[in-house]
Amino acid sequence: MHINQLSVAELATEQNSLQQQYNALKARNLALDLTRGKPCTEQEDLSNALDGILKGDYFTADGSDTRNYGGLDGLPEARALFSEVLGTRAGETLVGGNSSLTLMYSVVEFALSEGLAGAASAWGNNDTVKFLCPVPGYDRHFSICEHLGIEMVTVPMLDSGPDMDRVEELVQQDHAIKGLWCVPRFSNPTGCVYSDDTVERIARLGLIAGDQFLVMWDNAYAVHTLYDDAPKLASISDFCRKHGTMDNVIQFGSTSKITFAGAGVSYLATSERNLAALKAHLAFQTIGPDKVNQLRHVRFLADMKTLAGHMAAHAAHISPRFDCVLEALTRELSGRGMGEWTSPRGGYFISFNTLPGQARKVVQLAGAIGVKLTPAGATFPYGEDPEDSNIRLAPTYPSLEDVKAAIESFVVCVKLAAVEDRLQRKA
Amino acid sequence: MHINQLSVAELATEQNSLQQQYNALKARNLALDLTRGKPCTEQEDLSNALDGILKGDYFTADGSDTRNYGGLDGLPEARALFSEVLGTRAGETLVGGNSSLTLMYSVVEFALSEGLAGAASAWGNNDTVKFLCPVPGYDRHFSICEHLGIEMVTVPMLDSGPDMDRVEELVQQDHAIKGLWCVPRFSNPTGCVYSDDTVERIARLGLIAGDQFLVMWDNAYAVHTLYDDAPKLASISDFCRKHGTMDNVIQFGSTSKITFAGAGVSYLATSERNLAALKAHLAFQTIGPDKVNQLRHVRFLADMKTLAGHMAAHAAHISPRFDCVLEALTRELSGRGMGEWTSPRGGYFISFNTLPGQARKVVQLAGAIGVKLTPAGATFPYGEDPEDSNIRLAPTYPSLEDVKAAIESFVVCVKLAAVEDRLQRKA
Repeated sequence: MHINQLSVAELATEQNSLQQQYNALKARNLALDLTRGKPCTEQEDLSNALDGILKGDYFTADGSDTRNYGGLDGLPEARALFSEVLGTRAGETLVGGNSSLTLMYSVVEFALSEGLAGAASAWGNNDTVKFLCPVPGYDRHFSICEHLGIEMVTVPMLDSGPDMDRVEELVQQDHAIKGLWCVPRFSNPTGCVYSDDTVERIARLGLIAGDQFLVMWDNAYAVHTLYDDAPKLASISDFCRKHGTMDNVIQFGSTSKITFAGAGVSYLATSERNLAALKAHLAFQTIGPDKVNQLRHVRFLADMKTLAGHMAAHAAHISPRFDCVLEALTRELSGRGMGEWTSPRGGYFISFNTLPGQARKVVQLAGAIGVKLTPAGATFPYGEDPEDSNIRLAPTYPSLEDVKAAIESFVVCVKLAAVEDRLQRKA
Repeated sequence: MHINQLSVAELATEQNSLQQQYNALKARNLALDLTRGKPCTEQEDLSNALDGILKGDYFTADGSDTRNYGGLDGLPEARALFSEVLGTRAGETLVGGNSSLTLMYSVVEFALSEGLAGAASAWGNNDTVKFLCPVPGYDRHFSICEHLGIEMVTVPMLDSGPDMDRVEELVQQDHAIKGLWCVPRFSNPTGCVYSDDTVERIARLGLIAGDQFLVMWDNAYAVHTLYDDAPKLASISDFCRKHGTMDNVIQFGSTSKITFAGAGVSYLATSERNLAALKAHLAFQTIGPDKVNQLRHVRFLADMKTLAGHMAAHAAHISPRFDCVLEALTRELSGRGMGEWTSPRGGYFISFNTLPGQARKVVQLAGAIGVKLTPAGATFPYGEDPEDSNIRLAPTYPSLEDVKAAIESFVVCVKLAAVEDRLQRKA
């Protein structure tokens, strides 16, 4: 029954029952963890062939030696392959080291302190620099802004992506806004895929917000589908070319959730003008990325068809975990008015919203019985969720059995918090 | 005969003969390159076992999975091994990605903009920030300073290392000086090894120059000996501990010239305080380095004895090239007063000084007959050698045959420039 329909007596009865279930869970001394958006061991095993795949042949198709220095923008064959993943052109794509976060940090730091179009374009010339952050979102994006002194302005995340009416209104009003963070496919944590209309409106933002505006398009889950009905993402490059805004968008990705989480390759795509500026900046910091590892990846992932088969093998590990979480949430919470959740068709996360003001309590209740959840607020800038309702669930790393135990426990905590809250309000 | 002893007629005769030799070289259409301080293909081959060495076992001694995320300071076993290379402690050593240049850039950028000991310690709080640069030195060190707006003050490089009288005088006089670049063993390009006294005086600089002073100790050639009589380098850590200046020194190194130039691992060592500050900063930019490649390196290099054997195999490729260069220089230029050169016992370079004002001309003469040399001035800040005399010779990459042809041509150019110069002065 919906929580709004329960009498005080019925609420008290349910509280009593939930408290018993909670105590029973506590007695089990669980040690479960739904915090980490990282691949499970079986997923890592899928790429074990990487080490040794070169069989002594360290040379590229054009005969260059990947072992030696050089090649700031990566191997030509790696640029070709990963530009296909991003839906860009090889000449507009740079392939780097093991972390796209490093590329993102470099871009923001460079745009801030030196400027993508020369010193006059540096964001740091202004007293205040702001970024738009769709919420809930990815904490490491927010940390980059906070660390570099960029103010964050939140906009609501809808099922279609960021609330574009609000985004357009804000960039028109406030020219201190220089950027927008996006995870356009299977957004972290809601799992939404930006609609074609949203993608086009984002591609047009440079026309409204000015030359210095930069969309940080973190396409981390570009090929990370879990179900056949997963929505496709429109090509932002195509829209940018149409509207003449290639300089206003930088796309990122990595193989962290394709091959090895910590030992993959990262990539970045943008206009040739931006790429030249970034390369000139990167040249002071490195002689080049690990091209041997890029060659391993090219040999291993080969082409988009091989890569798709590999991603299907990942999905075979992840989708049962997603199914397990979604089944438990639906079974236990559907129609009860105690919370809402997303049903992503890919990616690594499920986003759960408790009733307002209960996220911290749910996380605390779960922690006290050995079920570690991502801290409430982590999906918001400065760790502050004004509604105190969003919780990011990350079911990929634990075993299926542990995911099941964790989500059953989570559901009890959600219900207990909701019922207690209702009782307090009625008291 | 010494050039000073030659009459005009003798000079003219020698010029004529040299011009004929030069023309003959030109007719050979050479395409030789002594510019690149990079290992030759045979050296890269020495580490071919790296790819595939894991044989499917991606786990560390303590059972952690190198494939997954995490471990900002590197694998424990990698920290242990490379702290031995640097002569530091594992707990004071961080192991990173494929480029020590990246670590160096990060350190300077961090000390400048944020401060190793909090915001009040940031060099950027001062209007002017200066670094001491022993010359001749390494162009990429100078480029970092130039890119980040740090003024460079040169000090002479002696056979014992930087001229410490001058260094101490400068840091006492000018508190805008915040750093000193060092390549302490087989310095780039002179190949000198800092004397024990110099190392101790550098370790004491923090006591004179103040808390914010930082020695950038780029120990790039720590284990890169070519001959058995190569001088050892004193441990700067030991001296720093003695004088209480651990916070004033950061040591760097990499396996770029141990395993693969572009696909090795880098490392950094400093006080635990500095290391904690750097890690907190790096955490915004990366989730961790490529630990799989670190594990490969630990399995491959194993211990200091195995590593020494591996370095001896490198030396077997490099020392004949050094011998060839030094033999030609000695044979053709010894006692002739046309230039001076160093005879390094390790490292990658030989430093040659022409008579004052002739380096650019020699480089130009050599280039015109197909022998590419490092641009004159490259070993000085802003590319400006006030004497126009230093030329860095890098004989490791070309075949021995090409090194021989290149150095024979170089010698002709040096002589021709010297004789023409003398004739002009006498005219």
